[in-house]
Amino acid sequence: MAAENNNNVVQVSDLPVKRPREEEQDGGENGATDTLSTLSNHSQHPGISAVIPGWFSEISPMWPGEAHSLKVEKILFEGKSDYQNVMVFQSSTYGKVLVLDGVIQLTERDECAYQEMITHLPLCSIPNPRKVLVIGGGDGGVLREIARYSSVEKIDICEIDKMVVEVSKQFFPDVAVGFEDPRVTLNIGDGVAFLKAVEEGTYDAVIVDSSDPIGPAQELFEKPFFASVARALRPGGVVCTQAESIWLHMDIIEGIVANCRQVFKGSVNYAWTTVPTYPSGMIGFMLCSTEGPTVDFKNPVYSIDEDDSQHSTRPLKFYNSELHSAAFCLPSFAKRAIGSKAN
Amino acid sequence: MAAENNNNVVQVSDLPVKRPREEEQDGGENGATDTLSTLSNHSQHPGISAVIPGWFSEISPMWPGEAHSLKVEKILFEGKSDYQNVMVFQSSTYGKVLVLDGVIQLTERDECAYQEMITHLPLCSIPNPRKVLVIGGGDGGVLREIARYSSVEKIDICEIDKMVVEVSKQFFPDVAVGFEDPRVTLNIGDGVAFLKAVEEGTYDAVIVDSSDPIGPAQELFEKPFFASVARALRPGGVVCTQAESIWLHMDIIEGIVANCRQVFKGSVNYAWTTVPTYPSGMIGFMLCSTEGPTVDFKNPVYSIDEDDSQHSTRPLKFYNSELHSAAFCLPSFAKRAIGSKAN
Repeated sequence: MAAENNNNVVQVSDLPVKRPREEEQDGGENGATDTLSTLSNHSQHPGISAVIPGWFSEISPMWPGEAHSLKVEKILFEGKSDYQNVMVFQSSTYGKVLVLDGVIQLTERDECAYQEMITHLPLCSIPNPRKVLVIGGGDGGVLREIARYSSVEKIDICEIDKMVVEVSKQFFPDVAVGFEDPRVTLNIGDGVAFLKAVEEGTYDAVIVDSSDPIGPAQELFEKPFFASVARALRPGGVVCTQAESIWLHMDIIEGIVANCRQVFKGSVNYAWTTVPTYPSGMIGFMLCSTEGPTVDFKNPVYSIDEDDSQHSTRPLKFYNSELHSAAFCLPSFAKRAIGSKAN
Repeated sequence: MAAENNNNVVQVSDLPVKRPREEEQDGGENGATDTLSTLSNHSQHPGISAVIPGWFSEISPMWPGEAHSLKVEKILFEGKSDYQNVMVFQSSTYGKVLVLDGVIQLTERDECAYQEMITHLPLCSIPNPRKVLVIGGGDGGVLREIARYSSVEKIDICEIDKMVVEVSKQFFPDVAVGFEDPRVTLNIGDGVAFLKAVEEGTYDAVIVDSSDPIGPAQELFEKPFFASVARALRPGGVVCTQAESIWLHMDIIEGIVANCRQVFKGSVNYAWTTVPTYPSGMIGFMLCSTEGPTVDFKNPVYSIDEDDSQHSTRPLKFYNSELHSAAFCLPSFAKRAIGSKAN
């Protein structure tokens, strides 16, 4: 397991980033040098955002001109998988943080919001889900949430990057606990290929817990992928995919919605929630159903928050039925852009 | 007007911040120096967050261990009023930005969310508001939103800091346009004193558009202030106050809710919305009513979004009736903390 290789564990001070002062000396008289970007560009870890001494800064062409920074107590792991750079650090106020290709995937402090919403929005919208597929989701958090449903018999997960699974098991036990459920089968491989091999109509629900559409997850935002998902779902089955931020990526979202509208012949809806450590402080979800029994995503048929009191393990921190319905209410600018394409 | 004094306009390169490289040389072997905080501490502008070359970073003891940064194209204004540091800069992707004591107050890109929600949540909850008071709100954005109501006859505003008004008029004409409405009377002074002098039962609604409870706005989060607001409202009148983030300041929020519960004998509710450039990407609002005709905040009695089509000036960008109701749906962790205190 890569995480056990101490050669991969580096301290902040070991990182070969270029410091602003050096850059200023290089750059001559222009004091307004683009420091953070410069750090990023000069890093010997392409794709990893700069770690200025003591802080991690998330910089990406996906959200130009802004950066969210977390104070680093200690970098716990840094490695390069076949697909991406993987980093874990202990932050001073958000707990441990998982970073892929320089982008924050989860923090212990706010992971509940994303994991609970991406799971319960689709699963509370259909009665008695039995077979569920997760594409991506290698940290195990979505599995943990699916495991709350006693109706579920089979949970398949297809994660492309083994290192994400291993690192999560080592550093995020409260998230990766999802892998321990006996109903889970882990497949390491390409989600697109996995879906093509799946028998038609297999799943009640598919949850696509992907990173951004730059890097290994790019295909997961394209039409052929959505068609494979639709094929793998039973009639009236549901899919929920990570679908970016209405503040930052309305163009991407409009494309996703248009694709889904063509592929999914049931309902097509957009929802969102607050996640402080994601760019713009929020994340959206695309919720679609295939032709068959009607799915009214805005009005959940199952109240897991009420039933949840029976589970002594881990009460829901974030999701509840009221918030479920509220998540589909969009600001006017987003409603105008998405509204005509969704229903 | 201070903004016309060129001595107050500085370029990024003129700012006397300490660069990380210098700090590292000072600090000896510890590569993990708290760079951003150091920059802030060494700044000769106390209270202003560090501007590392080319970027503005928002750092505050109110949200330790994290910082949101915006890329700076040009600093347009920097001054020190009797109350706080005032800065305006042109950002590369969020338009112009107003900063008070190092904390972002508004950006042109996302100001619609805050201004529309803090105004229409209270005003759409009562029929035909006639007299409205704004405490704070010196940028004029709340005034702009109040002006949409044809029922409103009188809009009083009491802003403590004249410089905020002047700077907003100069740099944010699309926000400060609110001052141009003939129904507006601007009072420069202390909101607490203003309220004490107000005749009992004067207003249908009071909107408290304050900065954080560190600095000049501190009193606006305390019980005597709420009592003055209640006194100034008619029976069944409403107040909406800026009320921090459930992710960062649940302790402050619980205190505000408890205070309001004692002071306001009608409804007491908490709502929230997304604002990317506020800490944790969201902001909350406290909505209360005085004893009298019942106010059901969650179900607005007036649909300004539908009526808005009549106004040719500036369509609502953010608020709508659906989002109004949704704003009162809280994540479970917040519901548990606030729920027992609000209704």
